[in-house]
Amino acid sequence: MSTDTILLEHGDGGLLSNKLIAETFLPLLKNDLLERMEDCAVMEIGGQRLSFSTDSYVVQPCFFPGGDIGSLAVHGTVNDLSMGGATPLYLSAGFILEEGFPLDDLKKIVASMAEAAQKAGVRVVTGDTKVVARGAADGIFINTAGIGHITYPGDISVSSIRPGDAIILNGHIGDHGAAIMSKRENLGLETDILSDSAPLSGLVADILQASPAIHCMRDATRGGLGAILAEIAQQSGAGITIAENSIPVKDSVRGVCEILGLDPLFLANEGKMVAFCPGNDAQAVLQAMQNHEYGRDAAIIGTVGESDRGRLILDTAIGGQREIDLPAGELVPRIC
Amino acid sequence: MSTDTILLEHGDGGLLSNKLIAETFLPLLKNDLLERMEDCAVMEIGGQRLSFSTDSYVVQPCFFPGGDIGSLAVHGTVNDLSMGGATPLYLSAGFILEEGFPLDDLKKIVASMAEAAQKAGVRVVTGDTKVVARGAADGIFINTAGIGHITYPGDISVSSIRPGDAIILNGHIGDHGAAIMSKRENLGLETDILSDSAPLSGLVADILQASPAIHCMRDATRGGLGAILAEIAQQSGAGITIAENSIPVKDSVRGVCEILGLDPLFLANEGKMVAFCPGNDAQAVLQAMQNHEYGRDAAIIGTVGESDRGRLILDTAIGGQREIDLPAGELVPRIC
Repeated sequence: MSTDTILLEHGDGGLLSNKLIAETFLPLLKNDLLERMEDCAVMEIGGQRLSFSTDSYVVQPCFFPGGDIGSLAVHGTVNDLSMGGATPLYLSAGFILEEGFPLDDLKKIVASMAEAAQKAGVRVVTGDTKVVARGAADGIFINTAGIGHITYPGDISVSSIRPGDAIILNGHIGDHGAAIMSKRENLGLETDILSDSAPLSGLVADILQASPAIHCMRDATRGGLGAILAEIAQQSGAGITIAENSIPVKDSVRGVCEILGLDPLFLANEGKMVAFCPGNDAQAVLQAMQNHEYGRDAAIIGTVGESDRGRLILDTAIGGQREIDLPAGELVPRIC
Repeated sequence: MSTDTILLEHGDGGLLSNKLIAETFLPLLKNDLLERMEDCAVMEIGGQRLSFSTDSYVVQPCFFPGGDIGSLAVHGTVNDLSMGGATPLYLSAGFILEEGFPLDDLKKIVASMAEAAQKAGVRVVTGDTKVVARGAADGIFINTAGIGHITYPGDISVSSIRPGDAIILNGHIGDHGAAIMSKRENLGLETDILSDSAPLSGLVADILQASPAIHCMRDATRGGLGAILAEIAQQSGAGITIAENSIPVKDSVRGVCEILGLDPLFLANEGKMVAFCPGNDAQAVLQAMQNHEYGRDAAIIGTVGESDRGRLILDTAIGGQREIDLPAGELVPRIC
């Protein structure tokens, strides 16, 4: 495997993505805010704490069961801001369009962004459009960046995670990845599985209301639940144990995974998140999630212990234990 | 000319770009902040006035005389924030990379971003990388979004422009467009013409210091000086007259324009801006520009009058007058 050119794996949220960040972006762009390496940067302007985040969306196909690149571009950035404990307020939108892209499709996508923004309580306030010649891009790419306002007093960060913390997940995993893959591979299962793409800002507001001691939140997007928990274990030095039995996966998603040889643990989600909080607050947070439309199937899936520091351990359904590493090698490209 | 698909002209900053914005983006994403249609949105969070802006960069070639896509992506967004009267503070960076892009080139580009950010006094605090398969993008696309802090008391906006305002330009126009085109067309003139790509944040700070009554600022990027002044005339309803003789153009840029049949008035710049201020402040603003490294060749190029409202009139070098419209039809694609 050559390492002197960009590989698809550099973009999959796994080992090579992290290597690219650690060896290229961080050393060159060096600053303390970037080095936090969370879903969003947190900074202070004129005494106000703000969060700031960006993502580019290249999902293929750009219309998929349960959503499209427009709603996804809003949800993704809204969710990244929310994970910092912020109220998402403003989005930017940068479009890169391929010459020949149907104008009607663009209108559908922008309408979908508008609807998603309204539902998430944010406004798209600034934008940009570039057009490149046929063959120089693939239809449509959208970048969104967002600004949120943080009023929660606690420091929501991997560095706040402590032994004794409970890990709470807001529902079934793998729906987004399975929806995209079944559409892309023409499995004919499109009607069964919809992407879980959704704005988590309201859910997060309820979670923050339920506990004054939320330590960390992260949405389980690229790389899935497995990748983000392995990354959190590495970043925080926490010893994380999760129970396979406690993680909700729909039968239809399991079915697609079996057909395609995928593991739901590493399938992308666009409306799933984990919250870390002291064990004493776990029931209150679970309840807050279950009372929200995007957390009906929430579950406590694991804990932070004193041992196995920096590692993610899975108690398997058949009674064993195995360590989960950051995925290396090709996951699903262009999932978001 | 078909209008049911995206054309290259939808991205050139001219008539079709504006039509796309007016007919697709604005009606769907409707809100007062977006409708200002300035280089950046201005909003208030917790009593602080902030500016927010985004641009995607698809410049081809990604290394060009006087810069590269990395420095350009920093300068472009820094300048858009500056045009709102803000001090640019934080940037996001979203990369879309084509599989096979040389890692060394990426490192050069990121190093160039870092250097440009340091020079402009901003920090890249959050980012994202996506990789698409060979053929699904053209090398590298970068989106930057930025946040600035506004402490200037005046309302810097097209709506503040008044009859009697002077229009001051900070130097020679067309360098960026001519540099890109001579490189792209292999004119062999590369060593002569360098892009003017530069951060204007320091220059703007000096301008705001020089006059408490700056009415409007805009950088003359895509579409060039002609397009942005025609757009400002339309947006503000101001009657703008500029004198061709007063607009600095380098001989080398004129030469490239003659060979390629281009008009410097519509060539892109990446370090040029205009400021509108009351005539009484014009000399102070001119002086402030000329004292700055990015304004040595600044000139007063025009005025806002009582007549010709909503129109841009050029007093030509040969003693005539002609109206300048927003350019329609293909300008130079992928100039930024």
